[in-house]
Amino acid sequence: MPNSLRLEFDNLIIELTAQDITDPALSDALNRLKEVLRYNAPGGKRNRGLSVIGSLRELVPPSKLSLDEIHRALLVGWCIELLQAFFLVADDIMDASVTRRGQPCWYKKDGIGLDAINDAFLLEGSIYRLLRRHCRGQSYYIHLLELFTETELGQTLDLMTAPPHKIDLDRFTMERYKAIVKYKTAFYSFYLPVAAAMYMAGIENETEHNNAKTILLEMGEFFQIQDDYLDCYGDPAVTGKVGTDIQDNKCSWLVVKALGIMTPEQRKGLEACYGRSDAESVERVKALYDTLEMPIRYHQHEEESYQRLQKLIQLHAKNLPHAVFLNFAKKIYKRNK
Amino acid sequence: MPNSLRLEFDNLIIELTAQDITDPALSDALNRLKEVLRYNAPGGKRNRGLSVIGSLRELVPPSKLSLDEIHRALLVGWCIELLQAFFLVADDIMDASVTRRGQPCWYKKDGIGLDAINDAFLLEGSIYRLLRRHCRGQSYYIHLLELFTETELGQTLDLMTAPPHKIDLDRFTMERYKAIVKYKTAFYSFYLPVAAAMYMAGIENETEHNNAKTILLEMGEFFQIQDDYLDCYGDPAVTGKVGTDIQDNKCSWLVVKALGIMTPEQRKGLEACYGRSDAESVERVKALYDTLEMPIRYHQHEEESYQRLQKLIQLHAKNLPHAVFLNFAKKIYKRNK
Repeated sequence: MPNSLRLEFDNLIIELTAQDITDPALSDALNRLKEVLRYNAPGGKRNRGLSVIGSLRELVPPSKLSLDEIHRALLVGWCIELLQAFFLVADDIMDASVTRRGQPCWYKKDGIGLDAINDAFLLEGSIYRLLRRHCRGQSYYIHLLELFTETELGQTLDLMTAPPHKIDLDRFTMERYKAIVKYKTAFYSFYLPVAAAMYMAGIENETEHNNAKTILLEMGEFFQIQDDYLDCYGDPAVTGKVGTDIQDNKCSWLVVKALGIMTPEQRKGLEACYGRSDAESVERVKALYDTLEMPIRYHQHEEESYQRLQKLIQLHAKNLPHAVFLNFAKKIYKRNK
Repeated sequence: MPNSLRLEFDNLIIELTAQDITDPALSDALNRLKEVLRYNAPGGKRNRGLSVIGSLRELVPPSKLSLDEIHRALLVGWCIELLQAFFLVADDIMDASVTRRGQPCWYKKDGIGLDAINDAFLLEGSIYRLLRRHCRGQSYYIHLLELFTETELGQTLDLMTAPPHKIDLDRFTMERYKAIVKYKTAFYSFYLPVAAAMYMAGIENETEHNNAKTILLEMGEFFQIQDDYLDCYGDPAVTGKVGTDIQDNKCSWLVVKALGIMTPEQRKGLEACYGRSDAESVERVKALYDTLEMPIRYHQHEEESYQRLQKLIQLHAKNLPHAVFLNFAKKIYKRNK
């Protein structure tokens, strides 16, 4: 973790848990929050969190950024990390996942279990406490509140569009896939940090925000496709997680794309295996993916998406510095974790 | 349900689920939301929701309330009902409850299970969508956003202050009890609706809000004590739920009060039975409550609390119409469900 951000995180824990210490009856609750934050907030790649300050630095000349503004941008970045931690803690329970970022999922720890639902809310609530303390006086405060609450709603659409207990491959269309991805990942991982930085830089114009959104949602879509690919083909030692998309009946890019090119016999085979957790079924799905040359198709898609993105940036980022988008693109394309 | 509110709820469902209907991939999600709303939002006593319009009518002369303002107050009332539905859906999972408002808990329904966590988030997100659509242009919009996010955080403190799997009666002090109640119930059931109405009436002054808070938190404390009493002594046919506070190791007023007056031998007996789910242990705790005459003590407390409240209203509600508080008090004291 970069040093500047490390420092920020420790301060954040102190701040979030020392505030109400005058009320002794709350000390258990605050100790629990400390534990939840330490276990769940760090440990990710932090691309989202760092994008806020990164984007702000492209939007405002460094000489015009006060120390306070830099501090606030780092803080808003941490709020995005907390938002993600909140989603992950809750998602892991619903997906019955086992590991996350190379360690056991929070709800899997001894004595935690379903109390993790409450811990997820604690993480969520921390976002609004921090925004209130640090940004309340700023003209962009209301925009941040709206961005965060809007993002949370989008997140809830994921599960419903692919109910884990109902296996019906007809539902896995590319159209549906793109809708899920837009609401589930692209908005909060890509648009949210840049939009926050734009508001902090005083850019409120709706057209500017829509232009940025067009580019960033495209990038977000590619990112999720990559994530789906790595879930099956990534190295757990590198990604830090054991993929379970096949077992979980996930509407993954791999299955959607594969469905579009397989024979009726292959489809029958897939129907018998997808969404099942026994090792043999999982292996048969993977073998089918290999037969259909999914890794090659994925790499083709990666190249095309990258080219498309460059064009979108030329077209839509008229008044915004291209670096805002290019910095993002550099981190994402060709990643292996 | 009063007719005006019934109408409002149906409109609300239409509004929340028709909005994005242009995106066919979202139709499953919106159908799910419809189901979740219909099952979980109505059916309560709706005191919280109705308090917004009720309080606003006391704060602003009826002739000065436009139809739009009345509509918005009903809508904010529904947002409080949605907030409660969100809490209840999540709490029932964590508490492993069986029934709620006379029907099976949502997560207990066939095919729902832990997906109910996501449904809770859907209910939560609906609040912010509605506030945004209806109140965005109003000067009090930001205050409403803050009130709702602040309330959510308070709610998360409940469980942690009484971990269900760790039985330690030393933790059940009256001081801790009051802190839990303040954050868990009093703030959102009592202060939130009145504070929302105050902001809608243009009252932003902090002293006025603090005065109202003092009175309403006292009322909220009594309400929770009553709820704890009814959990054990209420008639399930009337309350619509089967109490499980004893089994769930809840920091209930009954156990806290009883601990303060029992003999060391009685305490030993309680230690062996509290927080256990077998019928015999539960019966032994109830027999101890009877021996300690808890019903009589509860009714004494009710009378004292009512007198104390009247004094607080005289003292703190200087610039606010007393009816705001008295209407509330009337509904609460001597209720049996």
